[in-house]
Parts: sequence; C-alpha cells; structure tokens
Amino acid sequence: MTPAALQLDDRGRLRHLLTTEGLPAALLTEILDTAAQFVPVAGAPVKKVPLLRGRTVLNLFFEASTRTRTTFELAAKRLSADVLNIDAQTSSTSKGETLFDMQRTLEAMQVDMFVIRHGSSGAAHFFARHAAPGVSILNAGDGRHAHPTQALLDMYTLRLHRPDFSGLRVAIVGDLLHSRVARSDIHALRTLGCRDIRVIAPRTLMPAGIEELGVTPFTDMDRGLDGVDVVMLLRLQRERMRGTLLASPGEFHRAYGLTEERLRALGPDALIMHPGPINRGVELSGDIAYAPQSLILQQVEHGIAIRMAVMAMIIGRGETE
Amino acid sequence: MTPAALQLDDRGRLRHLLTTEGLPAALLTEILDTAAQFVPVAGAPVKKVPLLRGRTVLNLFFEASTRTRTTFELAAKRLSADVLNIDAQTSSTSKGETLFDMQRTLEAMQVDMFVIRHGSSGAAHFFARHAAPGVSILNAGDGRHAHPTQALLDMYTLRLHRPDFSGLRVAIVGDLLHSRVARSDIHALRTLGCRDIRVIAPRTLMPAGIEELGVTPFTDMDRGLDGVDVVMLLRLQRERMRGTLLASPGEFHRAYGLTEERLRALGPDALIMHPGPINRGVELSGDIAYAPQSLILQQVEHGIAIRMAVMAMIIGRGETE
Amino acid sequence: MTPAALQLDDRGRLRHLLTTEGLPAALLTEILDTAAQFVPVAGAPVKKVPLLRGRTVLNLFFEASTRTRTTFELAAKRLSADVLNIDAQTSSTSKGETLFDMQRTLEAMQVDMFVIRHGSSGAAHFFARHAAPGVSILNAGDGRHAHPTQALLDMYTLRLHRPDFSGLRVAIVGDLLHSRVARSDIHALRTLGCRDIRVIAPRTLMPAGIEELGVTPFTDMDRGLDGVDVVMLLRLQRERMRGTLLASPGEFHRAYGLTEERLRALGPDALIMHPGPINRGVELSGDIAYAPQSLILQQVEHGIAIRMAVMAMIIGRGETE
Repeated sequence: MTPAALQLDDRGRLRHLLTTEGLPAALLTEILDTAAQFVPVAGAPVKKVPLLRGRTVLNLFFEASTRTRTTFELAAKRLSADVLNIDAQTSSTSKGETLFDMQRTLEAMQVDMFVIRHGSSGAAHFFARHAAPGVSILNAGDGRHAHPTQALLDMYTLRLHRPDFSGLRVAIVGDLLHSRVARSDIHALRTLGCRDIRVIAPRTLMPAGIEELGVTPFTDMDRGLDGVDVVMLLRLQRERMRGTLLASPGEFHRAYGLTEERLRALGPDALIMHPGPINRGVELSGDIAYAPQSLILQQVEHGIAIRMAVMAMIIGRGETE
Repeated sequence: MTPAALQLDDRGRLRHLLTTEGLPAALLTEILDTAAQFVPVAGAPVKKVPLLRGRTVLNLFFEASTRTRTTFELAAKRLSADVLNIDAQTSSTSKGETLFDMQRTLEAMQVDMFVIRHGSSGAAHFFARHAAPGVSILNAGDGRHAHPTQALLDMYTLRLHRPDFSGLRVAIVGDLLHSRVARSDIHALRTLGCRDIRVIAPRTLMPAGIEELGVTPFTDMDRGLDGVDVVMLLRLQRERMRGTLLASPGEFHRAYGLTEERLRALGPDALIMHPGPINRGVELSGDIAYAPQSLILQQVEHGIAIRMAVMAMIIGRGETE
Repeated sequence: MTPAALQLDDRGRLRHLLTTEGLPAALLTEILDTAAQFVPVAGAPVKKVPLLRGRTVLNLFFEASTRTRTTFELAAKRLSADVLNIDAQTSSTSKGETLFDMQRTLEAMQVDMFVIRHGSSGAAHFFARHAAPGVSILNAGDGRHAHPTQALLDMYTLRLHRPDFSGLRVAIVGDLLHSRVARSDIHALRTLGCRDIRVIAPRTLMPAGIEELGVTPFTDMDRGLDGVDVVMLLRLQRERMRGTLLASPGEFHRAYGLTEERLRALGPDALIMHPGPINRGVELSGDIAYAPQSLILQQVEHGIAIRMAVMAMIIGRGETE
C-alpha cells in the first residue's frame, strides 16, 4: 500500500500521518480547521486540555533534532498525554536490533503513537506498514521524502493571510534536492488549489524531473521571483555548504538568498516563509526574518497547534465511535 | 546486612527491590498478583492511575540503557508519579563526586525512589544500605549480580502459561557468565518451586561452581534442551562477540542458537523467552521471536505491569498504615 | 538597562531573576518567606501543588549541569508546570542559529519561562533584554557573573540558623576568581545587612579590586577564618586543578581546605556551607560535609523550595491582578 492509502482508515479518517501526497483536500482542510481550535490554547494562561490524558506518545528520533522534538513534546504535553523521548541514535538499533523488532517491542509497551524522524526516506512508511492495530505513526521527517506537519503548518499560516490559494503564485527557493519540506509543501499547495508553483535552485540542487510534481523550475532567482505572492525559503543544511554542490555560502546568498534588494523588488505584499532554523546571510539576509512580511515566527507558533490537531484527530477520538 | 534481608522492612514488606535471591515466595507471588491488576491499565484507553501522584521517582542510570529506562519511566508515569532521568555517566560522579555524596544530595531533593542501573555488582545494595528513611531503591540491573524486575516479569509471563512450576523443566541458554538476568531468574524459579533448571553455555561462558545455585550445567545444547518445557535465551552482548570468549557469532549460533531445527525438536508446546533486545542469527534465528511458542513480546508488555506493581507496593502504600 | 532594573516590573515585582545585585531587601526577603511556604510541600507524601498547571517552563542549558537542571525540573514539576529540557550544547546554535533567533523561535512556542544556564557572563541578561512580554528569564548561572537562586537558597538556609545578619561574620573561601556563586552570595549578604564578609583565596584565584564589593580579602586561610560564624566554601572546578593557577589539589587543600583541625579551631557554633558537588580532600576533608555544623544537605533541600518560590512569584500570579 502506498503511504497515501495507508494513512487513512476504512472510513477515510486519519490513521497515520505520513505524507501530504494524496491527502484528500477535505481531510487536509479538516486538520487546518482543527488546528484553529488549538491556537487559542497556547495563548491561554493554562495551556492544557485533557484530550489525550493517559495516552502514551513516544518521540522516536533516529536523527537528532532538538527543535522538532520539542514541538511534538510540547504538543503532546498540552494535550495531557504522557510523553517519552527516545534518542534512537544511541539506542538499541545501535546494538544490532532491527527496526522491525524495535517496533514490536515498543508496541508491546502499549504506546499509542510513535512520532518518528529518520534519515531514510520511507522509514515512517515502514513503521506504518507494520503497525499493530490501535498504534499510529506520525512522520516527523523521513530522509528526503516528506515532512507533513511542516507542510500543514505552512498551509495553516499561509491560509490565514491568503485564504484563496487558487490565484496564488508561490516560489520555493533553495536546496530542493534534499528537501522533504519542499516536497510536502508542493503536494499540499496543489491539493489546496495552488496552480503557480515555482521552484528556484542552482542546477546542482535541483532534482531531475521535478516538473512532474506540477512545478516550474528556475535556476535564475530574479526571474523565478517575478510577480510571486509568497516566497518559501528552504533551510540549507550546513553540510551542503562544505560539499561540492555549492561554491560557498556567500555565493549561494548572492545568487539565491533573499536580500533586502530582492525583498524591495517583491513589493510590500509578498509574504516570506522559512521552516527554521535560519542561516543568516545564507538563505536570507540580516533582519528579513523579522520584517513585516515575514511569517516565520507565526509558522513556529502554528506548528504546535498543527501537531496538537493531528494528534487529537488520530488518537483523541472518543472510544464509543 | 545481605541484600535479601535489607530489602524487607520490619513487617516483612518490600522496602527496596534489590534481588530475587531470598525473596520469600509469598512476597514474590504478591508482586505477580499485584502486577495482574496493572496489566489491564496498559490496555485501557486512559493508561493512568493516580496511585503515586506527587511522588518523585528518579531514574539514575550509570549504564546507558534507553530500553530499560523507558520501561521504568513509563511505569512511573502511568502511576502518575513525577519522573526525573539522570544519565549518571555524564553527571557529577564524572566530576569527582562520590556515590555516597551523590546519594545524600539527591535524597535531600526528597526523591521517594531511586531506580538504579550500574555496571558494578552490588551498586544497588550500596545505595540501599545508605538510604535515608522513606527512600527506596529499585535495582534495574547491577553488574553481573541481579536484575530482579526482569526475573519477575519472566515469572509473571511463564506463570500465565504454566501455573504450576513444580514439574517444569527449564533451560537457560547463552552467556551465563555475564548474565544478571540468569542469576535472578534461577533464584525466582527455585523459589516458585521449579526443580529442573538446566544452564547451557560454552565452557568459556559458564561460571565455575554454578551447580551451587541448584542448576544442572550443559555444554551441549541439544542434550541440555532434551525434554524441556521452557527455553530462556540470554542476550549475548555484542562486545562478547568480538572478544576472546567466542569464536564468532555464527559459530555461537550453530552451537547455542535456537534454530528452526531445534525448535521443531522441542515440540509445539515448548515456550521461548528472551529478555530483549534480540540478536537475530545469534541467540535465535529468523522469525522465531514471533513464532506461536514465543513469549518475547508478552515479556515486554508484562514488564510495565511488574514495574508498576513493585513501585506501587514500595511507595504507594497508604500513609495511614 | 542594568540586570538589576530589568528584573523588576513597573510595580517593583519580580519579572525576571537575573542577579542578586540590586535586588531590593524587601523583595529578597519576600522570596525567602515564600520559599518557607514551599518547604513543607517537599516533605509531604503528595509533593505537588497546582499553582503552575498549564504553564510551560523550558530549561535551556548551554552548559551541561545535570544536578542544577534537575533541581529546576523538580521545582517546576512540583508546581505542576509542563517542563521541557533543551541541551543547547547539541542544539540549533551549534547549527549556526543565533541566540536571538533561537529565543524568538522558542518564544513563539509560548513558553512562559526560560531557565537559562550559559558559560558567558551576561547571557541571561541578553535573553531578558530581548524577552517578549509575558516571557520570563530565570538565570541558572551565567559565566562568572551570577547564580542568584544559589545565593537565595544560601540566604534561606543561613537565616534559619542565624536570623539576624547584622552582626554575622562570614568567610567565603576558594576560587573567587571564577565564582558566580561568590558574587551572588556577597550581594545578597550585604543586602540583608551582613557587614563583615571576608574572601579567602590564593593570589591567583583572587579577583583584582574585589574590595569594591565591600569584602575584605585574605590570602591566609587561618587569619581569614579567625572569629567567623559561617564558612562558605566554593567548589573548585576540576579543570582549575590541572591548570597553571594552582600547584596541586593537595597543596590547595593544605592551604585553603577546611580540615578537621581548622574545623576545631572554628569552634562548635561555626556553620559550614558548600554549593556542591563537593570535592573531598580538596575544599574540605573527609566527612566534614556531614558534621553537625554542616548545612550542605539543607542547602540542597532548600534549593527546591527557593526555585519553586521564584517560579511561583514570577509566573504564578493570578491573572486578575
């Protein structure tokens, strides 16, 4: 079964969240609408609802990412779940245990949801394929494949400012080759009706055949940005900067960074997004992160609400249903 | 005072849990019966009881073991305790603090229970000997000495399938020399009335004088397995595989691994146990872990209930008693 | 704005806790009085009050310190807050994110309080200067600058035994040069009326111009201790012992350690304090830590209550005020 099919149950409800690819528009919209109910929780003095009391959520991170782990941990705690963190880099798989055996063992502890980050594309799919009944998988990023909660929080944030995606022109800029965020954003944008999606990258960071996703590739930043409403910058992993794919961070910035000059050319209504953490002077310059057009901090804020929404929809349903 | 005496209070109730050696049969049975009450908690949608609300449980792990730490953390959280994890490998003892001073300091924080794992035999005993009134020690594995909760969950699981231990023939197979699990299982099995316990290992991994524990040693796997009802496999630490004690993992498997052929020879009623995590192709081959005779996942599941039972019996007693 | 001014709000209430320098005597006393209410909580069977339910406290430690992190985590949990731990040594700043960007991001997750430890003096001040409205900073130690909760717990402990500070003679002994604890204690002692404060250290560990803090420097231990009521020992970091500032730990002990002989010379009423963890045979010998005059374990115990008090005063105020 494909991830798209696997993540729905018999009644078309969310059972796992693996990818935005193939996620029906109605379900995607339901997630965003549910998140809207959780945004006020984070702003209240008592940031806690009892929805997942007594449920167990396990963060199983094969790739270290304190930031991302924190957002899932916070979401689960604000839903009153019990949360466990396993740094799987230093755990039993390093002692020779297979993923399959590890999953069986952790399931036997009656975990309700695994939040999985893994360096290999398809890892979350693997877990979902083998999941026991009643155990759900939430993909927190797998290799170059998908990072669905990031795309959902991006859609939530963008929808607040541009409710109608049909006429929207969006540019996604940077390391397309390695970006699971870009893939998940492209699928979500298209599902929500966006028809003009451009991807901008140097030739070395542009995947072959990316047009098949329904996007228009540009290797020239300024041509690609021409007339867009939204610029989604991708994080450039620091290891890429030292590799052979790029001349230097400075050169990348001149060719593909969002400079003050390019910001002015975009006009005051264009919106700026970035999944964080930002590399100042690489993907964007100076204080653009905090410019009025920047949605970067809103993305972080909405990330908690989106994760609460997904967890609540998957494991917070009443038992009598 | 011996660990056996030290772990009981004046009224013969459990004060610490250090070892299964000398644990009275009535008390051992009481732990298993208490665990039986906690097994349904883990299966319920709200996996939580308020028994230890406001109590503080501290996992103090001098040896890294994410798996074991997770089971204690989960047990404590499902009893509503506050749980702290200290990775003591990177903590103050590495700054020159003595164990004694560390214990005094952590006790001053009003911790109710220390769950201790340590590479040296006797470490939990040391802590128990110096524990302040009202502070309890739970041994989560000390050197080659004892791992009592593992033995208790093994007894719980075995008792479900074979309620009468008196006629039971049990074989414990593998690295007896380094195994605290084997020692704790042997003591518990004998206390519960098992009279035919065989230990099977190559000469290099068989402790001298092990007969004194009331077991029969075998160096030939097939002779040792002849007619047994239960096979308890021991985990082979990967560092042993590279040492001088063993020719190679493959050779160990041929001589002492549970193969499909040996499984067939045992017959369909023989039960298979392993404390996990398993090394496929070493202690057992392929998918035997998931064969109908295997109790391996049940062991994991019951491990949470056993740890809840021990914690509840030690620190969950009403204050008015 | 100075840290002293920055840590108070418009109405003179505690908004952040950065330093004891300039903390008004009335506020300092209010913290100690509030802590007195929390001491019984830790002794009760249910060590938990619902004061910070639904609040989020984030331990952001740029310097590893399991011990200190544990005390803040425990304090927050006993107030029923949700607690997150970020080991910032391995986090995004190591990926090139600036402190400023990290703070903005974590604030967007609606954290109520950051507990910050950092190797650089002024780091907590930096965070407080840039903190969003409603977000509070608690300094858990910044470089050589300040460690205010340590000083407050020292004052609490000392006040229990010597309620009137005005005639008190206090000696602070050891590595004054690197000690944030010494600086915070000196400011707090003076604010509470102590007029005779001596600092005792070898020349290499005595900061130039320390007299300006209102203390009297001594390089001779026995002259400095003459007639004192309280000896506050400072922890000697192990890296200093190997550096060029000291001949050897043994020589330091002979010249500046609290030996049995010096303890006798002090008389039975002199009190001994140390922030822990202790180095036996360096700052003090053998079992002096547990002598009747030693307040060391009381300091640890009161540390939890002081941290609860500060958290409650800063983020536990009723919303209707």
